[in-house]
Amino acid sequence: MATIKLEARELEAHVGENLLSSIINSGIFLSAPCGGRGTCGKCRIIVNKGGEFLSNFSNLERAAFNEEEIKEGYRLSCLAKIEREGTIEVEIPIESKYEPQKLLVIGVEPSVKLNAPIRKYFVKLPPPTLKDFRADSDRLLDTLAEKGLYDLTISYEALKVLGNVLRDSNWEVTVVVRDEKEIIWVEAGNTEDRNFGFALDVGTTKLAGYLVDLNSGKILNHSSLVNPQGAFGGDVISRIAYSMKEPKNLEKLNKAVIRGVNEILSDLCKKENIDANEIYEVSVAGNTTMHHIFLNLPPKNVAYAPYTPILRGSYSIKAEKLELSVNRGAYIFILPNLAGHVGADVVADILASQIYKAEDLSLLIDIGTNTEIILGNKDRLAAASAPSGPAFEGGHIKFGMKGEIGAIEKVWINPDNLEPEYKVIGDVKPRGICGSGIVDAVAHMYKANIVNESGKWVTTLNNNRIRKNDNIYEYVLAWKDETSIGKDIAVTQPDVRAIQLVKATIATGIEVLLTYLKVRSKDIKKVFLAGAFGNYVDPQSARTIGMYPNIPLRNVRFIGNAAGVGARLALISKDIREEAEKLSRKIEFIPLSSFQGFQEIFLSQVNFPKKS
Amino acid sequence: MATIKLEARELEAHVGENLLSSIINSGIFLSAPCGGRGTCGKCRIIVNKGGEFLSNFSNLERAAFNEEEIKEGYRLSCLAKIEREGTIEVEIPIESKYEPQKLLVIGVEPSVKLNAPIRKYFVKLPPPTLKDFRADSDRLLDTLAEKGLYDLTISYEALKVLGNVLRDSNWEVTVVVRDEKEIIWVEAGNTEDRNFGFALDVGTTKLAGYLVDLNSGKILNHSSLVNPQGAFGGDVISRIAYSMKEPKNLEKLNKAVIRGVNEILSDLCKKENIDANEIYEVSVAGNTTMHHIFLNLPPKNVAYAPYTPILRGSYSIKAEKLELSVNRGAYIFILPNLAGHVGADVVADILASQIYKAEDLSLLIDIGTNTEIILGNKDRLAAASAPSGPAFEGGHIKFGMKGEIGAIEKVWINPDNLEPEYKVIGDVKPRGICGSGIVDAVAHMYKANIVNESGKWVTTLNNNRIRKNDNIYEYVLAWKDETSIGKDIAVTQPDVRAIQLVKATIATGIEVLLTYLKVRSKDIKKVFLAGAFGNYVDPQSARTIGMYPNIPLRNVRFIGNAAGVGARLALISKDIREEAEKLSRKIEFIPLSSFQGFQEIFLSQVNFPKKS
Repeated sequence: MATIKLEARELEAHVGENLLSSIINSGIFLSAPCGGRGTCGKCRIIVNKGGEFLSNFSNLERAAFNEEEIKEGYRLSCLAKIEREGTIEVEIPIESKYEPQKLLVIGVEPSVKLNAPIRKYFVKLPPPTLKDFRADSDRLLDTLAEKGLYDLTISYEALKVLGNVLRDSNWEVTVVVRDEKEIIWVEAGNTEDRNFGFALDVGTTKLAGYLVDLNSGKILNHSSLVNPQGAFGGDVISRIAYSMKEPKNLEKLNKAVIRGVNEILSDLCKKENIDANEIYEVSVAGNTTMHHIFLNLPPKNVAYAPYTPILRGSYSIKAEKLELSVNRGAYIFILPNLAGHVGADVVADILASQIYKAEDLSLLIDIGTNTEIILGNKDRLAAASAPSGPAFEGGHIKFGMKGEIGAIEKVWINPDNLEPEYKVIGDVKPRGICGSGIVDAVAHMYKANIVNESGKWVTTLNNNRIRKNDNIYEYVLAWKDETSIGKDIAVTQPDVRAIQLVKATIATGIEVLLTYLKVRSKDIKKVFLAGAFGNYVDPQSARTIGMYPNIPLRNVRFIGNAAGVGARLALISKDIREEAEKLSRKIEFIPLSSFQGFQEIFLSQVNFPKKS
Repeated sequence: MATIKLEARELEAHVGENLLSSIINSGIFLSAPCGGRGTCGKCRIIVNKGGEFLSNFSNLERAAFNEEEIKEGYRLSCLAKIEREGTIEVEIPIESKYEPQKLLVIGVEPSVKLNAPIRKYFVKLPPPTLKDFRADSDRLLDTLAEKGLYDLTISYEALKVLGNVLRDSNWEVTVVVRDEKEIIWVEAGNTEDRNFGFALDVGTTKLAGYLVDLNSGKILNHSSLVNPQGAFGGDVISRIAYSMKEPKNLEKLNKAVIRGVNEILSDLCKKENIDANEIYEVSVAGNTTMHHIFLNLPPKNVAYAPYTPILRGSYSIKAEKLELSVNRGAYIFILPNLAGHVGADVVADILASQIYKAEDLSLLIDIGTNTEIILGNKDRLAAASAPSGPAFEGGHIKFGMKGEIGAIEKVWINPDNLEPEYKVIGDVKPRGICGSGIVDAVAHMYKANIVNESGKWVTTLNNNRIRKNDNIYEYVLAWKDETSIGKDIAVTQPDVRAIQLVKATIATGIEVLLTYLKVRSKDIKKVFLAGAFGNYVDPQSARTIGMYPNIPLRNVRFIGNAAGVGARLALISKDIREEAEKLSRKIEFIPLSSFQGFQEIFLSQVNFPKKS
């Protein structure tokens, strides 16, 4: 055993382990978007003492740090392996801390008729006598039959408590019935008015949970949390890679998300003063990878062509199986997936936007590391998944970062003097730029003619913000005095390139669907933007760079966290569940890369649209 | 911690514990039919050293031992509590050892059409391509639909392995389907010919398991074991009492039986060279108490009027829930109960005897601590449960013992010279008399006129085997030189009384049912004797003492371990399962004690029948 001293704590660590694992296992989160492969360079730590007990400085680390940092003791924690017993003093610099992000939890709610799968029935049973010695199960079922409930089964969890509950309550109990089929729970006295459900959106980045009153369909409260899986990789691909490295890693990822969900549950129960046992149903939406990991199913094949998930259809499973802290008899209902990259979250998007009921041709874009695009109306719906990558989450952008405190999230550039204005999350000094900030910056740079239609620097401009650094053009957004990192924050030529590629990928998805459905972009009557990024991005900026067709902004709607909305609708309506299952079979999924003419369409989308 | 030295082993024991618990917890079984309440006096041990670390000799112990035994260091292990740390040397005398008993596992099998709930289907799936990227679940379900299997669900256990099994087997897999409804398991390659099930009879005294080929319905092998719950009490009442003493005791009883069943499973798998994963279905029969404990349901109310069990109907539960070592997706099917004292074992008896199909009036007697009596035919069936007590298992009989090695099991008495002959289990020197032996002895004593019709000693006889001991009449069956205990083995006046009470209880049950159904004893055309005791008792002796009506012996049939047969039938036939459920609703249960005229009937049955 070696000892790691960290922020007044002493952690025990095994020889052979790397510092990233040791630190994460002790419950401290470190940023490690690549999942500990040494490639993202984010899990930086400073070793103040005991470096001699660690593996040698590697080439990957040499590339990640400058000379000064190396002298200060910087290491990548995933590559610093404990080689001998000893005491290692470690410090986590601010940039490596995995901080709670600005999270989007609210979505726009369409009205849906309440038809919850859980109903409670208060019943008074005749107590047994020497002449009426029916078993407890028969006594209960017979009484419910008198209320018109026939052929019910009794869950094992309810059976386990039945004998005691009946006797402790003087034979007056409330029965919790699911789907008019199964008695999932029995409790003493009349508790008909306390009937709660939990809707969950398992996002790659965040978990958003909603406590719902199943008697009224009303949301009582919501709560969210950074997905604790982030410690094992920032995006689905690195988490899938992590899950494949060792057999027990899937379990670790699963346990991480379950722990997070249980934290949310505990928070909501405390806020609303209810007991976890009063939550009788859970509904869940997530992308295919999150869906699989949540169910503890190997997500491997979702990552490789032809991207086949293990499970498509909606699925009900006892919450107990996944160790969720709700009533022991409760079920989890998981919305159906569509195909490899298109998961239950997209089915939820469609439910939330209701484009499956629309007369008009509608476009739905759920922007994330993969951007899901759905085009169609009530007659036909086609979907595609565009690998938009991590640029909107700060990946591949020089000063990119997630939408956390210190991120520039809004940018305007005065076209006359090229001076920028910006807004920072938390109103602090900036330390980077997040997705909505970089889209704004690029859109305004294009409008101000700093870059041209093909994304190249207009080199004729004479302005101190436009310069070459290491032979690469950049535009300085914030001078180092204004920042918290002591460096100029700039947008570089490769940054603009990265944004062009992302927007081209999304625009290509849209083009492919238009071609497939044989319609034109001007036929699109409505655009729905979903997901956290979709909510924060400036729709005008997005249109300026050509992310979606040029339609009037009044027809663009943000539907916020649509996955959360979909999960909530499925929680309170069995009809919505049926609709979801139908949709998941009906929607036509078009794999982009094998679509004929894909390359040509993509190349035609790289340039910015002509200015109007 | 204290240390217990026992047979070259050293056990760790906690201060505050009694020696019975410490010894049982270390895996050594001690006889303790009363469940450790100090009343049965069976858990005798000898403390050779370290008695000073134990609680004082109690009054209950003073009553259990003679002076010599007290000097030798005899204690009742349940009352000897460890009071201080130290080393205690203990010896277990032979009479306290809980030895494997002579167990009955075979029963008479009626022919039943094979209609097993488990079917296997070998299928070849089209591998996914870029054009056919259906989810694994859809690919499987679509292929099964082509075989005519629609609307199947996939169990979570199957889902967990589905992705890997499909890919590892080149998309050629065998699907295990239950009830044409649920895919419970998927495995690589074609394994259609390996399809096994397990039938289990959970007896109070013994566990009997049968390995069955579900493709043919054939029994491949069987195995049995003393129910390890015996260590917590010899009969259902003392086990129920034990379950109520502390909340975790139910769990202990449950774990004990599950451990025993898993031993049987492991034995059967080894014998037949199959893997536990190849057992896809389990069916179980047991009395109501065993049924409840097996399911980890509190059996409390079964013991108290009006004797209402928690569950009547047949029930299916995942084997995993009860930690049974079979395939992870397998279900346990539990036969339905009838009422408080009349459990799934009796439903199984009725299935095995097929009296529910009979034209003739038939009587079924399943003799145990409670004796279940069923009277009727295909039109109507009535059942009663007679509290026959532990006499047939050696309880309340001076030299009584279970049907273990050393028990006198058969007795003949020469009416001319009153000299007995007897047969001992294991052909060793006798150490006691078991149930069938005592019934034989009493019947022959009546025939030889040693006792009269009212069970009293005929004092006019002059024979050295008939004597008074401590003012109590007795008949010496074996002189002390013939025995292994160095004492004469005799049948006493109270022993005969005990047997009279038992037979009267059973005969009363029969009379009550005759009265209830308004039929006469001479209308009974067939008698079925079930259960271990029913199999070993001499039918003529039983008839002689008046345990059942005087009908020709050729119409008396032993159906052996009918509960095991019933469990086997339910394992291979869904029709039998339906039949069982119907029976459990249809059979009329008559509580004896509240039946009008019960006392009079009982008193009229105490005498032996007139000799013919």
